[in-house]
Amino acid sequence: MDGQPEARLRETAQDGFVPNYLLYLLAAASEAASAQFHAHVRAQGVRVPEWRVLACLADRDGEMVTRLAGYALIEQSRLTKIIAQMDAKGWVTRRGDARDRRRVRVYLSAEGRALAERLVADARTHEAALLAKLEGGDAARIKQALATLISELGAAQE
Amino acid sequence: MDGQPEARLRETAQDGFVPNYLLYLLAAASEAASAQFHAHVRAQGVRVPEWRVLACLADRDGEMVTRLAGYALIEQSRLTKIIAQMDAKGWVTRRGDARDRRRVRVYLSAEGRALAERLVADARTHEAALLAKLEGGDAARIKQALATLISELGAAQE
Repeated sequence: MDGQPEARLRETAQDGFVPNYLLYLLAAASEAASAQFHAHVRAQGVRVPEWRVLACLADRDGEMVTRLAGYALIEQSRLTKIIAQMDAKGWVTRRGDARDRRRVRVYLSAEGRALAERLVADARTHEAALLAKLEGGDAARIKQALATLISELGAAQE
Repeated sequence: MDGQPEARLRETAQDGFVPNYLLYLLAAASEAASAQFHAHVRAQGVRVPEWRVLACLADRDGEMVTRLAGYALIEQSRLTKIIAQMDAKGWVTRRGDARDRRRVRVYLSAEGRALAERLVADARTHEAALLAKLEGGDAARIKQALATLISELGAAQE
């Protein structure tokens, strides 16, 4: 480490530890990419946690609330309130599991499914535009690399 | 889209839109990686926003509060309070800029610098362990790909 304050006071973001630190790059890329798409989501009258639930249900209609929480990156007590609000809007319905009534499953309504499918299509378009900014090899590899990190970090927590 | 509810109700996280969506992968990887290192930071008696400020100042001692906010991914009004608390702990000092006294610059104390350097060393070790989980080519490319995304997204906002 350089002892000169003048040398330490760098003027560009290219030098130093933080701008090249994986956790900073992940947080900053996630924040910037999400800010862009979430502005679009809110312009459609949908709040961000609602969008996450819609996208998860488009993949797994009838999922249990407990499992939606992990998939939607939303804490369960908060998710329960969000789903109640989405039910009031007519986007989802809640039904007890056939075998265990205490387990609540969440289903898209016809309106909710149409909204989810429209937003997922928009998200795919936005994602394709982002990936097109990367060099060919990186666009093909970044998602696999991120999935590997998530998997390794999940295994470490167990 | 398949019309059969049974077919839509998939049991693994590998299928569907969300688990392969770039913005989900970025958010989940960032959250999982940060959760792991932030537990270590808190165990050292340092709060996460304080760690971010320490890391930024280790790169740019004497940075202005206005510019630290963008670099530390912390909103400016919140950052001002965090820096006041770090000053009270003896980790940083605040001084008006020599040319414009209204511009506040933040400097590490000797204690703050020792703490910052220790945590940056720990962060580098943690980062190296994460990157070692990736295949060789991915470890070398993921940071560049993330930096490209951040740069493209930043340009889009201007």
